[in-house]
Amino acid sequence: MLGEKKQPFDAVQLRPWESGVPVSGLPVLADGNGDTFTDSRAIAEYLDEAHPAPPLMSGDPKSRALSRKWINHFDDCVWRDVTSVVLQERVFRRYTTDADRQPDLPALKLAVQNLREELHGVEDALVRHGWFTASLSLADLTAAAHLSVLDYFGDVPWQQFPAVREWYASIKSRPSFRPLLADQLPGFPPASHYADLDF
Amino acid sequence: MLGEKKQPFDAVQLRPWESGVPVSGLPVLADGNGDTFTDSRAIAEYLDEAHPAPPLMSGDPKSRALSRKWINHFDDCVWRDVTSVVLQERVFRRYTTDADRQPDLPALKLAVQNLREELHGVEDALVRHGWFTASLSLADLTAAAHLSVLDYFGDVPWQQFPAVREWYASIKSRPSFRPLLADQLPGFPPASHYADLDF
Repeated sequence: MLGEKKQPFDAVQLRPWESGVPVSGLPVLADGNGDTFTDSRAIAEYLDEAHPAPPLMSGDPKSRALSRKWINHFDDCVWRDVTSVVLQERVFRRYTTDADRQPDLPALKLAVQNLREELHGVEDALVRHGWFTASLSLADLTAAAHLSVLDYFGDVPWQQFPAVREWYASIKSRPSFRPLLADQLPGFPPASHYADLDF
Repeated sequence: MLGEKKQPFDAVQLRPWESGVPVSGLPVLADGNGDTFTDSRAIAEYLDEAHPAPPLMSGDPKSRALSRKWINHFDDCVWRDVTSVVLQERVFRRYTTDADRQPDLPALKLAVQNLREELHGVEDALVRHGWFTASLSLADLTAAAHLSVLDYFGDVPWQQFPAVREWYASIKSRPSFRPLLADQLPGFPPASHYADLDF
């Protein structure tokens, strides 16, 4: 989002268990003037208000309500039913006392089934405008963040959802998003197509 | 919120399992002009934009970010750690095949402990302004909704948190809120002080 707004920033990696990290959770935005902000959704709305160009929320209240519905749907429901399960089984599990256990394959399979059901709704939404609402908004960036995590592990069935695939290809090619595709989680190589703009 | 905005409305009780109820969940706002809105947070922001008087979000982006942080904290963390546990054990459990089982007392006790920890943070926030931010906002209405549910079952330790108690007394006495205190869940009488303005 800061890239879309052309705001320079330093990304600092914090570990929740280290001292000095705010108990209210990550991410934190420090604006350089002594103010700090927490809660990813509150931070995103703040950035859009504090740096209005280019707008990432439509000026129309109905369209804003639709964007917020999608943002909350991804951060609440898709997180709960898909993204958090994939992260837990593929990554977090290895850092627990349960590290030797194999991934819970039925749980992963259910998460990918849930993803497929979600993508039917997303496909329907995207065929209308190419974006979640009439133009690029916070909803697109939120959905792309979830799908990027899932695609890192090769869990997105792109070929069944052409409008979703085309939308994600256009997000991937944005100057704000391309550098993010070079980020890797040490010890977890991404799926071979992950950073390709043509996938 | 519609009461604060002096917007007349019909409250219609829907049951999620009945046909015709939107799969995207409750509540739903139907604005009478053919538009419907889902997701309680998206609905609340929409109402504040569509009916700006009186404003329930400050005009200052920093203050709005703080309101949204509190709203999301209550609807995500307090819901997960407190409100949903109390509802599950005190109400929903009775409608499941587990209906004869007694409430899970350790889970309820932990939820009330979690609530006490949350209220320490809320007390600190409220002693500054009397509200979560400089004036009444969506954050106050969201927090009051959670505390009202918990107070219905007598689970709020008001006497230990004088600023929280004073804040909730002022919310309770608002013309928008007083009628809500007459609502009862059939079969579950509220705590004796629940509807009292002096408690």
